[in-house]
Amino acid sequence: MKRAVVLLSGGLDSATILAICFAQGFEPHALSFRYGQRHILELAAAKKIADSLGAAAHRIAEIDLRLFRGSALTSEIEVPKNRSNAERSSEIPVTYVPARNTIFLSYALAFAETIGASDIFIGVNAIDYSGYPDCRPEFIRAFEQLANVATRAGVEGGQFKVHAPLLRLTKAEIIRRGMSLGVDYSLTHSCYDPSPEGLACGACDSCALRLHGFREAGHEDPIAYAG
Amino acid sequence: MKRAVVLLSGGLDSATILAICFAQGFEPHALSFRYGQRHILELAAAKKIADSLGAAAHRIAEIDLRLFRGSALTSEIEVPKNRSNAERSSEIPVTYVPARNTIFLSYALAFAETIGASDIFIGVNAIDYSGYPDCRPEFIRAFEQLANVATRAGVEGGQFKVHAPLLRLTKAEIIRRGMSLGVDYSLTHSCYDPSPEGLACGACDSCALRLHGFREAGHEDPIAYAG
Repeated sequence: MKRAVVLLSGGLDSATILAICFAQGFEPHALSFRYGQRHILELAAAKKIADSLGAAAHRIAEIDLRLFRGSALTSEIEVPKNRSNAERSSEIPVTYVPARNTIFLSYALAFAETIGASDIFIGVNAIDYSGYPDCRPEFIRAFEQLANVATRAGVEGGQFKVHAPLLRLTKAEIIRRGMSLGVDYSLTHSCYDPSPEGLACGACDSCALRLHGFREAGHEDPIAYAG
Repeated sequence: MKRAVVLLSGGLDSATILAICFAQGFEPHALSFRYGQRHILELAAAKKIADSLGAAAHRIAEIDLRLFRGSALTSEIEVPKNRSNAERSSEIPVTYVPARNTIFLSYALAFAETIGASDIFIGVNAIDYSGYPDCRPEFIRAFEQLANVATRAGVEGGQFKVHAPLLRLTKAEIIRRGMSLGVDYSLTHSCYDPSPEGLACGACDSCALRLHGFREAGHEDPIAYAG
């Protein structure tokens, strides 16, 4: 089985790509990050998902993005709630972490090179998403080009591929795809601002997109919400 | 003054680019990494260089590349000594750290975006170098392209530039350039495998290139060597 690195955040999207990676015949090696995020619960979720789907390995890299202040996800800026679709599609929100996916993919590339993999899976999505620049197809393509000149494997003729199978799917389509592959969404964590007990807020961008997706897919979201 | 991020390792090349960054009229913000390197002395050197040249800031990011085993610079593999020029130019050595410059530039990009800079200086060199894939011009160009699609600043019309002013210089030319700009090379640290007292070995690739450069430049290397 060909090895692949899967960026696993513990959210709905990355759980789905782990299942897709398996379904495409790869041996998935999951990679998560402890990066000073407020919603640290997602790491516990990542572990449960990796175990439940049977990933060959699950590594957690410690990185300190707090060095780069300025995002609501890693500092004390308030997470925006109840934004409209128009707001979500027109502006990059304060939850944007500078260059986050660039850093995550760089680690994935290092991990891939170390284990002899040339395939990386990332759960970015350019449809139902928060407007982050590093979730767009042109970003994925640019990183793939970089990977092929940045590494020993690339220089020696290997072709790195960054798989972003959710790029063009709606949240509802992602959920249907995951359910058909047996993903247990009760293990996933999406909320940017959970309650002290770990319940999802139901109002941040991430909760809003998730709830809308389940409604549209005609399924009930199996996780609990606060309030 | 326009801000710029300078990747500062504490070696000869990065000390020189810090001086060049100043000379080009930028306000340099230096960034170093603690990444489990064996030659941790370079961080102390980086601090002295940043202070001596008057960088506006010097940040040290903690990252754990040991997660990705396989390089002599971060593990117990022996550092190769006394390699010939032919060996150096024909193979990627065991001191290659998977995707290291990709990770370093990703952090530099995040730091740049956080402080409103769109210029990054990196001391890579494609002439007198160790044969690493991520020291080549095509790597620099690919990263620049990535930066412009990966970030809020890029999307909003900013143009990131990755400056690699040493790319086409020989080590002797780098040394002459730095001396004309007042770089104090006695503060720099280049050795991959220093003695317990912190003396350079004089035989690893990095020492060999440095010594050759000083000889060719007609200057004496001001640092001490073991043995």
